[in-house]
Amino acid sequence: MIETIQWIDDCVVMIDQTRLPVEEKYVHCRTYQEVATAIRDMIIRGAPAIGVAAAMGVALGVLRTPDEAVDGQFETICETLARTRPTAVNLFWAIDRMKRLYGSVRAQPVGEIRRRMIEEALRVREEDIAICRAIGRNGEPLVPAERTILTHCNAGALATAGYGTALGVIRAAVEAGKNVDVFADETRPFLQGARLTVWELQQDQIPTTLITDNMAGHFLKSGRIGCVVVGADRIAANGDVANKIGTYSVAVLAKENNVPFFVAAPISTLDLTLASGDQIPIEERAAVEVTHVFGQQVAPEQSRVENPAFDVTPSRYVSAIITEKGVARAPYEDSLRKLAG
Amino acid sequence: MIETIQWIDDCVVMIDQTRLPVEEKYVHCRTYQEVATAIRDMIIRGAPAIGVAAAMGVALGVLRTPDEAVDGQFETICETLARTRPTAVNLFWAIDRMKRLYGSVRAQPVGEIRRRMIEEALRVREEDIAICRAIGRNGEPLVPAERTILTHCNAGALATAGYGTALGVIRAAVEAGKNVDVFADETRPFLQGARLTVWELQQDQIPTTLITDNMAGHFLKSGRIGCVVVGADRIAANGDVANKIGTYSVAVLAKENNVPFFVAAPISTLDLTLASGDQIPIEERAAVEVTHVFGQQVAPEQSRVENPAFDVTPSRYVSAIITEKGVARAPYEDSLRKLAG
Repeated sequence: MIETIQWIDDCVVMIDQTRLPVEEKYVHCRTYQEVATAIRDMIIRGAPAIGVAAAMGVALGVLRTPDEAVDGQFETICETLARTRPTAVNLFWAIDRMKRLYGSVRAQPVGEIRRRMIEEALRVREEDIAICRAIGRNGEPLVPAERTILTHCNAGALATAGYGTALGVIRAAVEAGKNVDVFADETRPFLQGARLTVWELQQDQIPTTLITDNMAGHFLKSGRIGCVVVGADRIAANGDVANKIGTYSVAVLAKENNVPFFVAAPISTLDLTLASGDQIPIEERAAVEVTHVFGQQVAPEQSRVENPAFDVTPSRYVSAIITEKGVARAPYEDSLRKLAG
Repeated sequence: MIETIQWIDDCVVMIDQTRLPVEEKYVHCRTYQEVATAIRDMIIRGAPAIGVAAAMGVALGVLRTPDEAVDGQFETICETLARTRPTAVNLFWAIDRMKRLYGSVRAQPVGEIRRRMIEEALRVREEDIAICRAIGRNGEPLVPAERTILTHCNAGALATAGYGTALGVIRAAVEAGKNVDVFADETRPFLQGARLTVWELQQDQIPTTLITDNMAGHFLKSGRIGCVVVGADRIAANGDVANKIGTYSVAVLAKENNVPFFVAAPISTLDLTLASGDQIPIEERAAVEVTHVFGQQVAPEQSRVENPAFDVTPSRYVSAIITEKGVARAPYEDSLRKLAG
């Protein structure tokens, strides 16, 4: 069985998601800088998984820093990890959680600080798996039986510590005995759908069909899709959802064809400090991700490229937001605030 | 300067569109069977270009068949070329045109038949360039200045004998002095946008930005796109448009964001025998086009794949259809029939 991210022998060990499915290779991070690089280079990706990686990165930084330097270095460790990717809020949520703990233990002996930081990072990971299971339980009743579920990108075990958010809902539907199959958008440019979603659903023997992103509309129009389920990288107070580029298109096409569009995400993905999705920073990534595929050139040299990694789906296209604490529906200002407690 | 398709020394010569932009390689077809294979393998593609190739293929077949066998072989030649690709109606239109000519000259000496068939195929090519120029002239006034034009797939010089349909409209806008730039969807799985549209617009120094298909919605929402222009493979009597997979999605997203959506195509793309787009046959292509890019595996082995090469955009999403004879608007039943004469 594949593990997305683990703490082994005082290293952070991740499966290299840039190489899947061609190669199942693990990356061992020995320093917090290596964790930061792994997040930036998308060796690990997916909002909840990034949160776990950041928490482990902070713990690793504290572990590797000489006793006398820990207090001086702590902010640098956190900042380095925070500067890796701007959109997924789980990154900042996890770092804040580690900072709060640090604040409460910094007066203690360094050995004790280290022990507590590692323990907390492991707890973030364990909680994430439990949260995904709860999201699955809460989302499963929304999934129509005997139909096809469309998903975009990878919001699966590989995007979390395990089980997945959107794919957690699908797994829960299968576990509940529903006869469903999955259509996976390939999700250019990084091909998370083709490379990761198809691969991990194959492991679970959930019947999955790969399509290119531009086929989603055609199949939504065809009537065979019963619902869409995707993950999220950040959700604003009004229910606007930042998620992998292309999510907005799928949401519009779902609404146009009267297909329910569900977002599955942990409460840590909520950013209630933002009134709307317009305020969510959208990461722009390198042109080479679009012009090359696994190193193979697919566009002319010197192509001008735009490569926003995310888009924002206005909440009017979102049928429900599925969290570990329950299902939110419009008006989201109220329902999300209630769930967040 | 690159030529899409030419008749040289009694060969049909095409630039190999499966290799662009990495390699500028010409394929020389010496038999009609080689032309058929070139069409099927997408060495040449684009509805009008396929029409020219089919006409030349018929002429080549007649040219290479021994005198006494021409009349017996003629149907086989036409059928072989007709069985290559099912969706673009220009293929059948061109073959029918060659059949009509053949019917009118079959009593003449074989040398004269051959001369007339070749002459007709060359005329189909020349007319296609003139038609594209006229489409450009007719479409140019619809293009807003100082804005970005979004296009999908390649409906350019490479999809025609030259100048292009959708890209003909863009070229005409640039020639009219309008300051515009282009966003090109990469158009998976065959990447006609990335490989062909970006490449040919670069040759003309028209500023072009490459995006993945799933970014089109994001940029349509952003307000920077002034209009969408695409080509067509077949247009039904009610104005429903079959075009490259993903066109339907772009059309819905354009409408949702109040961006005009134009289709540019020659009259030969109309199929007034079909009441609606539901009756247009949609080609399903091989899974390997989705699972591999230039031979590089991008999805797990044994992935189940759907690969419809086209979709149908209902006419309610189409702001206008631009032809060489003028611009049709809804209700299309009337306007298209009038243009077709």
